[in-house]
Amino acid sequence: MPELTVGELAALCGAELEGDADRVVTGPATLSAAGPRDISFLSHPRYVRQLERTAAGAVLVAREVARPREDLVLLRCEDPGSAFSSIVSAFAAPLPGPEPGVHPSAVVDSTVELGEGAAVGALAVVGPGSRIGARAVIHAGALVGAGVVIGEETEIHAGVVLYAKVSVGSRCIVHSGTVIGGDGYGFEPGTAGWVKVPQCGTVVVEDDVEIGSGCTIDRGRFGPTRLGRGTKLDNQVHLGHNVEIGERNLIVAQVAVAGSARTGEGVVIGGQTGVAGHVEIGSGARVAGQSGVYGDLEGGRDYQGSPAQPQKDELRRKAGSRKVPALLARVRELEKRLSDLEERLSR
Amino acid sequence: MPELTVGELAALCGAELEGDADRVVTGPATLSAAGPRDISFLSHPRYVRQLERTAAGAVLVAREVARPREDLVLLRCEDPGSAFSSIVSAFAAPLPGPEPGVHPSAVVDSTVELGEGAAVGALAVVGPGSRIGARAVIHAGALVGAGVVIGEETEIHAGVVLYAKVSVGSRCIVHSGTVIGGDGYGFEPGTAGWVKVPQCGTVVVEDDVEIGSGCTIDRGRFGPTRLGRGTKLDNQVHLGHNVEIGERNLIVAQVAVAGSARTGEGVVIGGQTGVAGHVEIGSGARVAGQSGVYGDLEGGRDYQGSPAQPQKDELRRKAGSRKVPALLARVRELEKRLSDLEERLSR
Amino acid sequence: MPELTVGELAALCGAELEGDADRVVTGPATLSAAGPRDISFLSHPRYVRQLERTAAGAVLVAREVARPREDLVLLRCEDPGSAFSSIVSAFAAPLPGPEPGVHPSAVVDSTVELGEGAAVGALAVVGPGSRIGARAVIHAGALVGAGVVIGEETEIHAGVVLYAKVSVGSRCIVHSGTVIGGDGYGFEPGTAGWVKVPQCGTVVVEDDVEIGSGCTIDRGRFGPTRLGRGTKLDNQVHLGHNVEIGERNLIVAQVAVAGSARTGEGVVIGGQTGVAGHVEIGSGARVAGQSGVYGDLEGGRDYQGSPAQPQKDELRRKAGSRKVPALLARVRELEKRLSDLEERLSR
Repeated sequence: MPELTVGELAALCGAELEGDADRVVTGPATLSAAGPRDISFLSHPRYVRQLERTAAGAVLVAREVARPREDLVLLRCEDPGSAFSSIVSAFAAPLPGPEPGVHPSAVVDSTVELGEGAAVGALAVVGPGSRIGARAVIHAGALVGAGVVIGEETEIHAGVVLYAKVSVGSRCIVHSGTVIGGDGYGFEPGTAGWVKVPQCGTVVVEDDVEIGSGCTIDRGRFGPTRLGRGTKLDNQVHLGHNVEIGERNLIVAQVAVAGSARTGEGVVIGGQTGVAGHVEIGSGARVAGQSGVYGDLEGGRDYQGSPAQPQKDELRRKAGSRKVPALLARVRELEKRLSDLEERLSR
Repeated sequence: MPELTVGELAALCGAELEGDADRVVTGPATLSAAGPRDISFLSHPRYVRQLERTAAGAVLVAREVARPREDLVLLRCEDPGSAFSSIVSAFAAPLPGPEPGVHPSAVVDSTVELGEGAAVGALAVVGPGSRIGARAVIHAGALVGAGVVIGEETEIHAGVVLYAKVSVGSRCIVHSGTVIGGDGYGFEPGTAGWVKVPQCGTVVVEDDVEIGSGCTIDRGRFGPTRLGRGTKLDNQVHLGHNVEIGERNLIVAQVAVAGSARTGEGVVIGGQTGVAGHVEIGSGARVAGQSGVYGDLEGGRDYQGSPAQPQKDELRRKAGSRKVPALLARVRELEKRLSDLEERLSR
Repeated sequence: MPELTVGELAALCGAELEGDADRVVTGPATLSAAGPRDISFLSHPRYVRQLERTAAGAVLVAREVARPREDLVLLRCEDPGSAFSSIVSAFAAPLPGPEPGVHPSAVVDSTVELGEGAAVGALAVVGPGSRIGARAVIHAGALVGAGVVIGEETEIHAGVVLYAKVSVGSRCIVHSGTVIGGDGYGFEPGTAGWVKVPQCGTVVVEDDVEIGSGCTIDRGRFGPTRLGRGTKLDNQVHLGHNVEIGERNLIVAQVAVAGSARTGEGVVIGGQTGVAGHVEIGSGARVAGQSGVYGDLEGGRDYQGSPAQPQKDELRRKAGSRKVPALLARVRELEKRLSDLEERLSR
């Protein structure tokens, strides 16, 4: 890792320096793990006590944070979390990947169009008629089917599987273990059991999409399953056939979206939530984790619960369910008092 | 894509034609996306308004649907969804896969028995003593261990992992990212920590089973984990060791079934549901998504909730929990009125 | 499979024999599946009736179990489940894997340090600067990035992906489909959409850890994501960036742990549970399946529900929510009786 002075780092992220500008640091660390040659940051109030005790050589903090000790070097800025990203990048060398060109062990069909500076790693496979954009990187062992289109500067990580005819845009990142273009889940009752409904569509991933590890995105029954530009998927997300995810969505780990469901722009879906088939979620809606979306949701609001309801209603419902034992006692008491009264009056 | 007339398509799926039989269409599309050279279908009443506005060249509808416009060409039949499948297939060329024979880059042990017309794709591995049935297809990069048996016409997609000694029947489809035969999750407390319980069984997948992408099916502790004939798994399903899934089950995405649980025939389990170890689910039971099955379930009924209960009871419980805030207000009112009465009578 | 006498097996696991010591058995089986040449065991009272009817040649039982039939050969011991493990192992040959050395089809960089007796299987990839410990096994098609460290006797199964710089300890087992070291899920709002927060840390898996199939463990934003010594993960577990799992944890299938969450020693997390970012779970805490941990949990106690609460409170809450319909009827009755009384008194 390189050595940088605190003064250089303050300049790098536009922070105001409080303390020795010449102190040298060699890398980023958390407040609790940092030593005198590490730089750290305080982004969340829950870690204020760690700030007091930290051994870090310097700490990025928000403008209003009090300096707990004279010897602590502080870099003050608007958003320490965001500023810290540029500092982390200054220290980190990018992870090594395959060199431009095709690794001799890869199996790339002679009909593949390979853009300038594109790289195909060891033991990767690229099927007939596929087009790989300029400076795209196909890591070791990735399996790219026939007729696949991959845009410029897109990174397909080790072991990813793209079925035939899938299309991935430019500047996308697809992490390992992810499968794009498997058959959608469609079966009809037949005389001898379930009959497969042909899955003849494809998957279109638009530009600037990132897909985490271990996701599965099924091809459409016909027509595409689609991920809108700038959307980011966490790990182990499942998208059924003909799902249409809008632009700039955030979909957190282990979410499952059933067939033909649609989301607008800027939708956020928390981890482990399920979305039923054919529902629509409006732009800007935010669905909390572990929810179940069984009907259309209007945009611009926060939802929670299963079935998902406006957050306020769900919090009220949950609070209510905790009050039942006490309510039961009150009703029992009422019944007793009322019986006493009735008996007295009947005498 | 081929060009077909509406008359040809009506004949293909046994539909009654209303409109111009000579109109040419070139492919299937949804009602909202279709243009004049596309054929579409209406299967769900929620899309009736899309039927009114569609630009589709022709639309498959149920017999009783009203014709909204004179210029709309309709194909009337019993089940438009099912009929549409044969139309989709008429347009779709099957996705390309490996040619019969062994790709020169594949590593297939000399002891492997390869059936007539079977195909092993680029960079696939097949271990010693395995048997691949006639016309089976092992796609690129699939990893088949030693002593594995694969039936006729079964398709093992790119990157699938079959551990040693796993058996997959005939006419099965296993999608990418799926792992069959990993160790079951078994540990016993020991003096220095958890001690591994040996997992010495295997997995038996019977005929006509389809397994989605990213599933994990563990080998039995001893004896097999079993998937019954004609069962269909969606993506990211987890089956623990010695699970026995009956015939013709439908198990939707992200379901987890813990060790030694068993299901009868024709069981349906909705997405994201969990099934505890050792429970039995009777034939024909249908468990809603996001449920938790913690005890045996009698066959032939619908269940929901966590713990899963007969659907009616769970819906009642859920409705009840939403009524608590109102109930609280009524109890408060009762207490006040009763206190007033008591006070009046004590004077 | 070898043939062993019941007497030999009783000696092997220290059991007291009741019946013919010379009877020969050839393998383990469940009570219901076992024939006269199989040995079985009774570990769970729910299977007592299967003991009565079993055709097994011999059965391991606890000391206090009654002998249901004269012809049944019993092996009595303290813990039949644990004793049975040694019997299963006596019959089971280990699954075949790659031979020591590097398979000619593997792509192992010339700078890789390979320990004595280590094995790298067919079509596996090991990147520059990686170190593989003595007797470690890298199965077919595993993809090991640059600068990875793998300890002695560790087994990396077929198709596993280890991103660059990941470290796995000694005597670990990592099952197929698992991805270690993908980018954490971090994005900040920018003017044109979400901006990627660089993920520059790594993953450290300590000694004696087992990780099931299809897990995804993200690298830290900076600093490591960590799995403590002796921890065991089931299938399809997701761990976010900078998660720190303590020693000897058991984390069951489909659990998701969000970024920077931490667990103490000996924590148990049931299947399908979600843990929110930044929370801490104390040593010895046990969280039931399908729970949601949204705040810190004190160690040494049992939790359940979403949000997770002490188990007793959650069971009380759940029981309460089932009583609401009856409570509603009681309140309605109270209102009627009180109205009657009020009316009578107002006359």
